[in-house]
Amino acid sequence: MRRKSRSTKAKGISAAAHLDHPFAPQRIFSDDRIGDMHDLALKVLEDLGMKVLLPEAVEVFAVAGARIVDDMVFIGRDMVAGALASAPRQVLMAAPNRARDQMIAEGRLLFSPGGGCPNVSDRIKGRRAGDLASYRDALRLMQSYDVIHKLAPAPEPQDVPTHLRHYAMVKSQLELSDKPLTIYGRGRAQVMQSFEMIQMALELSDDAFAGASWCSTVVNTNSPRLLDRPMAQALIDFARAGQLSIVTPFCLAGAMAPITIAGALVLQHAEALAAITLTQLARPGAPVLYGGFGSNVDMKSGAPAFGTPAHIQMSIGSGQLARHIGLPWRSAAGAASNTNDMQAAGETHMSLWGAMMGNANLVFHTAGWLEGGLTFGFEKFINDIEALQTLSQLCIAPDDSDDALGFEAISEVKPGGHFFETKQTMARYRTAFAAPLLADLSNFGSWSAEGSVPSDVRATEVWQGVFRDYRAPDACSDRASRIARFIADGTAKGGAVIES
Amino acid sequence: MRRKSRSTKAKGISAAAHLDHPFAPQRIFSDDRIGDMHDLALKVLEDLGMKVLLPEAVEVFAVAGARIVDDMVFIGRDMVAGALASAPRQVLMAAPNRARDQMIAEGRLLFSPGGGCPNVSDRIKGRRAGDLASYRDALRLMQSYDVIHKLAPAPEPQDVPTHLRHYAMVKSQLELSDKPLTIYGRGRAQVMQSFEMIQMALELSDDAFAGASWCSTVVNTNSPRLLDRPMAQALIDFARAGQLSIVTPFCLAGAMAPITIAGALVLQHAEALAAITLTQLARPGAPVLYGGFGSNVDMKSGAPAFGTPAHIQMSIGSGQLARHIGLPWRSAAGAASNTNDMQAAGETHMSLWGAMMGNANLVFHTAGWLEGGLTFGFEKFINDIEALQTLSQLCIAPDDSDDALGFEAISEVKPGGHFFETKQTMARYRTAFAAPLLADLSNFGSWSAEGSVPSDVRATEVWQGVFRDYRAPDACSDRASRIARFIADGTAKGGAVIES
Repeated sequence: MRRKSRSTKAKGISAAAHLDHPFAPQRIFSDDRIGDMHDLALKVLEDLGMKVLLPEAVEVFAVAGARIVDDMVFIGRDMVAGALASAPRQVLMAAPNRARDQMIAEGRLLFSPGGGCPNVSDRIKGRRAGDLASYRDALRLMQSYDVIHKLAPAPEPQDVPTHLRHYAMVKSQLELSDKPLTIYGRGRAQVMQSFEMIQMALELSDDAFAGASWCSTVVNTNSPRLLDRPMAQALIDFARAGQLSIVTPFCLAGAMAPITIAGALVLQHAEALAAITLTQLARPGAPVLYGGFGSNVDMKSGAPAFGTPAHIQMSIGSGQLARHIGLPWRSAAGAASNTNDMQAAGETHMSLWGAMMGNANLVFHTAGWLEGGLTFGFEKFINDIEALQTLSQLCIAPDDSDDALGFEAISEVKPGGHFFETKQTMARYRTAFAAPLLADLSNFGSWSAEGSVPSDVRATEVWQGVFRDYRAPDACSDRASRIARFIADGTAKGGAVIES
Repeated sequence: MRRKSRSTKAKGISAAAHLDHPFAPQRIFSDDRIGDMHDLALKVLEDLGMKVLLPEAVEVFAVAGARIVDDMVFIGRDMVAGALASAPRQVLMAAPNRARDQMIAEGRLLFSPGGGCPNVSDRIKGRRAGDLASYRDALRLMQSYDVIHKLAPAPEPQDVPTHLRHYAMVKSQLELSDKPLTIYGRGRAQVMQSFEMIQMALELSDDAFAGASWCSTVVNTNSPRLLDRPMAQALIDFARAGQLSIVTPFCLAGAMAPITIAGALVLQHAEALAAITLTQLARPGAPVLYGGFGSNVDMKSGAPAFGTPAHIQMSIGSGQLARHIGLPWRSAAGAASNTNDMQAAGETHMSLWGAMMGNANLVFHTAGWLEGGLTFGFEKFINDIEALQTLSQLCIAPDDSDDALGFEAISEVKPGGHFFETKQTMARYRTAFAAPLLADLSNFGSWSAEGSVPSDVRATEVWQGVFRDYRAPDACSDRASRIARFIADGTAKGGAVIES
């Protein structure tokens, strides 16, 4: 049975801002077999090892007693067990607006919008390379719906030089939004400067900054069994700063992972355990999420597929593995479609439900993804928000009071009559059902008379309205202004080159 | 944990033809409150009563001891309890091709396509009134995908006079398909002639016909608390013939039912229990399904909405009530959208998942519905089949053998490599993942070069291919030919007028 939704007392923030899963987590493998998969992942790490490209990370493993052969790290099961013992069961993801803080833990449900997209598209300007203007527009969209629980880096502001991009992205997030921040793990210099900007903008003491995760980053392993330099660096740097690494092997069954669901999960699990272990060696107790983004490729073309049975099963199996090791975890929705069509909606809906069935605690790419993440689409974003709002409303248990059971209302209405005027309806009609964001419920005649407008065109009107009316939360400009000097100085000194 | 899918041994019929629910049923109310809702529904029937417009049905209740005041029938809880004791826990829905028989019981999952649509639409001929040609085309579509488990009456062949329509519809079903048949409950004459045609076409003895449900009908109550003449007649006639009534109050919260989920469910439950009781009084042990089709109306416009939180919650609550009384049950998906857009896909996906969460045993309107059922759309049908095939594949537990866990495959591939050539991949790639029916997984460049074709246009190509290649199962023409004389004679005698 669903738990009652947490109430959000902050003015102007709806119940959608803090969600608990309404459904019990599902299983696709027996608990015994999940145990076997965990053991097999340990064997992968012990016997086959991980290739780690960052010497500093290899050294961390070596100091802890791992067997090292060149850049191959063989991680013993005791070391993994130690890491799992120190990794926190819950992580406080703090927001500039503390009313938007999120405790990530078993049972919690958070949605992150589409991230990592190099391109942007909308029906007015078409598909194009992401730029700072479209990134800032996307931030406005992300801020405008409470069901989006953190910011994501998309579309990529490609018109900003890479050595200065972290300035523009941190500043834009602070200036336009008060939700939890995201930064890229693109090398120590950018990460450290980003930490510094956040601490400065939010006026945090060193202890306060280290006491919660004020930003998060996604760490993708390069499946199979490879951890590259910037990702390993991010794991270490975020851990030492007490900031959140979201560990995410991207295991596409049949391509970078075994073709079976079980095999792809074993590989994912091994890689996630390796990354989690590195965080805990860097700083025991460091915040970290278990994660997986698993689906399949089409075996004819090699193209990644989303919303497929394999995608859903990978989400459910990942949830089982996460609960096996007792950590909160992230999953991902996704869509391969190239446009705002039924395919796009279907893929995202299916993969969202996969995350629901797996009880993912933080679901990525829930709004705006097209082309397997190559494009952030504004119309798609609006359409996906409708789906997320539907799911968020399922998190609230329906009224089961005596009045709700409705005998009195039923007795008021004669056979064949209607309930529009019962006392119960009159008392509840304003708030009984949330108005749809995008769905047009008019009949065919009215809809045709109004120009037969399909949902993608209506979605354009919705995002245009968001931009027209957009007003950043009050405190934003103050926060952003506190880092203006830092950015000017840093820019003058040449910024911070990204590492790859 | 999901059960293993039943194997289907018949040649040419895939595993999608027989499904068991992969997920545990969910709850939105406590078991105690479900018990209270059941009691309250009994109180509705005892104290408020049902209006029953068919004197024969009133008489059936009267003979059994119900209190009658004019056309109001007050049904005591003992009478309901007796009906629930005799109603079967499982129902054999027999098909002309016995390999397509379906046992409807707890845990089973069946999909019925969109039904009851007066109109039809496709991208070539546009939206128009349903006719016999489009009904026959829809039957070809329904027959072509194993994940559709029974036939549905849509679009309505409005060009056939109503007194002859049952001839055309039964003949078309037999001629084009070998799946379980549906007939309308539009009066005793049409129903009895339809039974006779089916028995004749399938060469069934009287005992054989009475021994399974060779056809089914949907019985909608006229919520609130009204049972009209043809529906009451169908309940009696189907029960006495051992054929299946699918009892379905259509309770739209806020309109024909209380505005609360709990209240709408209490009304639905009362009406369903009244109808089930009538079947059991007509013939104890008669096949009958509990059912509900519940959603909400938009409180601004009064328009029915689908795929909403209320729709999903009604499905889950209905499942709880069905399990409370121990009967298998039907639910419904649905979409309000007027066209093949993201809204349409989203609504159907959401409501399908509601049926999954409620563990509905037979889900109606799963493919082709648009405009809240006013139109059967061919492109929408194809798109929905993709969703149903995805769900059907989730019913098959993933391989959890040692080979599937993949340690050997993982050890074959060096860090950063790929799995395309592992022994495991080579052995499995042909069958590992079902090819999508409609999804285009090509990248944006290829997709654009091919004309930027969206999913609704591709869906047209799919259904055109179905019609081009369609060949009815071998035995169909023999079955249909057996009733040619009966139809000719019946037509000469003036057919059978429908009752309303």
